[in-house]
Amino acid sequence: MTSLSIPSAWTGTPVPDGVHVTQEPLGLAAIEGLRFAAIAVGVRASSHRDASLPDVALLDVGRAVPASVVLTTNQVRAAPCEIALRHASRGGVRAVVINSGNANACTGREGMWHAVEVVDAVAAALGCQSTEVVPMSTGVIGVPLPVGRISSAAPKLVEQLRSGPESAANLATAIMTTDTRPKQFALRVTDERSATSFAVAGVAKGAGMIEPAMATMLSVIVTDAELDTAGCAALLKRVADRTFNRISVDSCGSTNDTVLLLATGSAGPADEAALEAAFTGVAAELARLVVTDGEGVTRVARLRISGAPDGASASAWGRAIAGSALFRTALHGSDPNWGRILAAMGTTSAPFDPNAVDVRFGEVMVCAGGAAVAYDHAAAVAHLRRPDVEIDVDMNIGSAEEVFLVADLSAGYVSINAEYTT
Amino acid sequence: MTSLSIPSAWTGTPVPDGVHVTQEPLGLAAIEGLRFAAIAVGVRASSHRDASLPDVALLDVGRAVPASVVLTTNQVRAAPCEIALRHASRGGVRAVVINSGNANACTGREGMWHAVEVVDAVAAALGCQSTEVVPMSTGVIGVPLPVGRISSAAPKLVEQLRSGPESAANLATAIMTTDTRPKQFALRVTDERSATSFAVAGVAKGAGMIEPAMATMLSVIVTDAELDTAGCAALLKRVADRTFNRISVDSCGSTNDTVLLLATGSAGPADEAALEAAFTGVAAELARLVVTDGEGVTRVARLRISGAPDGASASAWGRAIAGSALFRTALHGSDPNWGRILAAMGTTSAPFDPNAVDVRFGEVMVCAGGAAVAYDHAAAVAHLRRPDVEIDVDMNIGSAEEVFLVADLSAGYVSINAEYTT
Repeated sequence: MTSLSIPSAWTGTPVPDGVHVTQEPLGLAAIEGLRFAAIAVGVRASSHRDASLPDVALLDVGRAVPASVVLTTNQVRAAPCEIALRHASRGGVRAVVINSGNANACTGREGMWHAVEVVDAVAAALGCQSTEVVPMSTGVIGVPLPVGRISSAAPKLVEQLRSGPESAANLATAIMTTDTRPKQFALRVTDERSATSFAVAGVAKGAGMIEPAMATMLSVIVTDAELDTAGCAALLKRVADRTFNRISVDSCGSTNDTVLLLATGSAGPADEAALEAAFTGVAAELARLVVTDGEGVTRVARLRISGAPDGASASAWGRAIAGSALFRTALHGSDPNWGRILAAMGTTSAPFDPNAVDVRFGEVMVCAGGAAVAYDHAAAVAHLRRPDVEIDVDMNIGSAEEVFLVADLSAGYVSINAEYTT
Repeated sequence: MTSLSIPSAWTGTPVPDGVHVTQEPLGLAAIEGLRFAAIAVGVRASSHRDASLPDVALLDVGRAVPASVVLTTNQVRAAPCEIALRHASRGGVRAVVINSGNANACTGREGMWHAVEVVDAVAAALGCQSTEVVPMSTGVIGVPLPVGRISSAAPKLVEQLRSGPESAANLATAIMTTDTRPKQFALRVTDERSATSFAVAGVAKGAGMIEPAMATMLSVIVTDAELDTAGCAALLKRVADRTFNRISVDSCGSTNDTVLLLATGSAGPADEAALEAAFTGVAAELARLVVTDGEGVTRVARLRISGAPDGASASAWGRAIAGSALFRTALHGSDPNWGRILAAMGTTSAPFDPNAVDVRFGEVMVCAGGAAVAYDHAAAVAHLRRPDVEIDVDMNIGSAEEVFLVADLSAGYVSINAEYTT
């Protein structure tokens, strides 16, 4: 086994000998049979975005394929999430319809019927079952979806479906809210032992908003490798836990987060380890793109909690640090203030010995055994001024570890989320 | 029973008929026998504060009296907290020594010895037992306490002990970090039935720092009413839960938070209900002063979670809202973005029906049954522009309720905590 080298925070996923993983420049268009459309219907009458920009997008696989979805754990879950869960778990998804500009969240029973109406209109235009269509929404919450504009656009969306990288790029742009750039990433896996090849390709939109609303993450990842529904579900859950569930922009859980996996199977069966490595690589890179393009983000820390007794404790400590406004402002200010890391971990119920903890910023150890050590202050600050910071927290209790990508907290975040009053 | 009217977020504490509660302008000096001293010893060599400002203070009761303490629940607890707990639970506290400029937190075993050395020096200078002295520290964390400067100043501190409001005010100023104003509040209770009187007087320092360090709350509250150690502990725990534990500046739990209650008994026995009302009033007002003077705070919301099935659920929802950066930036921007409130509550594990929740900003209902209602947008924004905002969230499940005071999140908070790099 060699290690997969991808531009990711989560390196080290093993791939079998004889298997090669390379970046696939075509993005979603690398998957045979996919078609894309994106049009402007004016989901928001007055948008911070140019009203002529596409805000409804359709991805069509051409036939129902095995799928799985993971959703926000928020109790307040938007209507499209409920439908996505029902339809993806039935085992055959053909198309995904995504709108930006309105999250259709906190919209009561009416919101549910709106989501159903959108799905029905797309299914009718495609000539497929409604249960084969998964909806996703992102944007302002608590405002009724302008459902007529979206559902009446369904025939036009279907008419404009095209294959190729340009259409895929249009879809990636249409689903943006306050994202500053579209996010696509794909990997191709070539297995020289069997002379076969498959691709994993994904698109995401990240921590953004159109008006003050939840920052929502949506992602669709498609592979042409063969997987059944149960295989999709197991793979997606495992990988999402290690990637999308390890990033934090502002610790605010969204009402709409959705990650959908589709397996078209056109490339035939794939080596299991190779598929897991490639899927992890794509999910990790999309997650990294989301956090680095988060609202007001100037710097992202790769935070490694090691020496933990178990993964759950490591996760609790990592999430507490990621959720600490004091840690995130110190990260923004390039301040080697390791005390805020210990204090944040101390607020959890996972027990540890504060006098055993070591903290490193890059190569610079700043805290050993829970107390200050003499260190090169200038070197620590220089490391913390990088856009990608490495922070290692060694609990010295056990051998479990978890990695998180954590964004800084800037005045820019505050103004994005405070100053666009509705 | 009539209701106690005090400038507090927690109104409605009942007092018996014939009992009158009025503000006591003397502050801590209202308690017979208390003496105060504050001097500058240069705890921090280079401080953001004027180095000539007092940074070590001593409060002396003159003899050991019943006491109780509540501390931060953070696992990473500063050395002085450990000693405060041991000494206060022994049942007799005579003096409190408080330094700003250094929290003596994350300082390992050495930090514990430093705290002991300070206590021993004060006890020697006072001619009392070390166990009768409670230490408190606030300021930068992870930096060794300049223990010599503090312990060698003990004789001078004792020599300068004076009674009276001016000395009390000096103490209130010496314990400040980034606080913009000293915080004292006192109430006098007159019982016309027994022709007796007692006072409850407190001092606090709040959410501030000298260098990037934890924002720490310290408070000492003294009453001349008679209470034994067990009575002190029960009263303090009950009242702290309703007051100090219901405020949030940045949801970051400190390593040093300490509230100490001292009962001198010189005024004799007190009506239990009247004492609880007055103590609640003082604690509530000090807590309010702390949150309104929090770092970068421009606006404070009195957040009431009502209609909850039980207090624990109401607290979980209140804390989730208080901890939401998206809610707090919307509060800063006077944005009636009620969706962020529902979304924040949804991240808790306390179950509720999103379609039952009502939200009001002041008198303006903006959300009914979990969905938007037509409302006077200008009136809602006008209410949210006030420095003191009222937000009512009715869960419509049960009859329990909890009140929180929550600060907004401003760019000022970010710059205070990001830009003073060590």
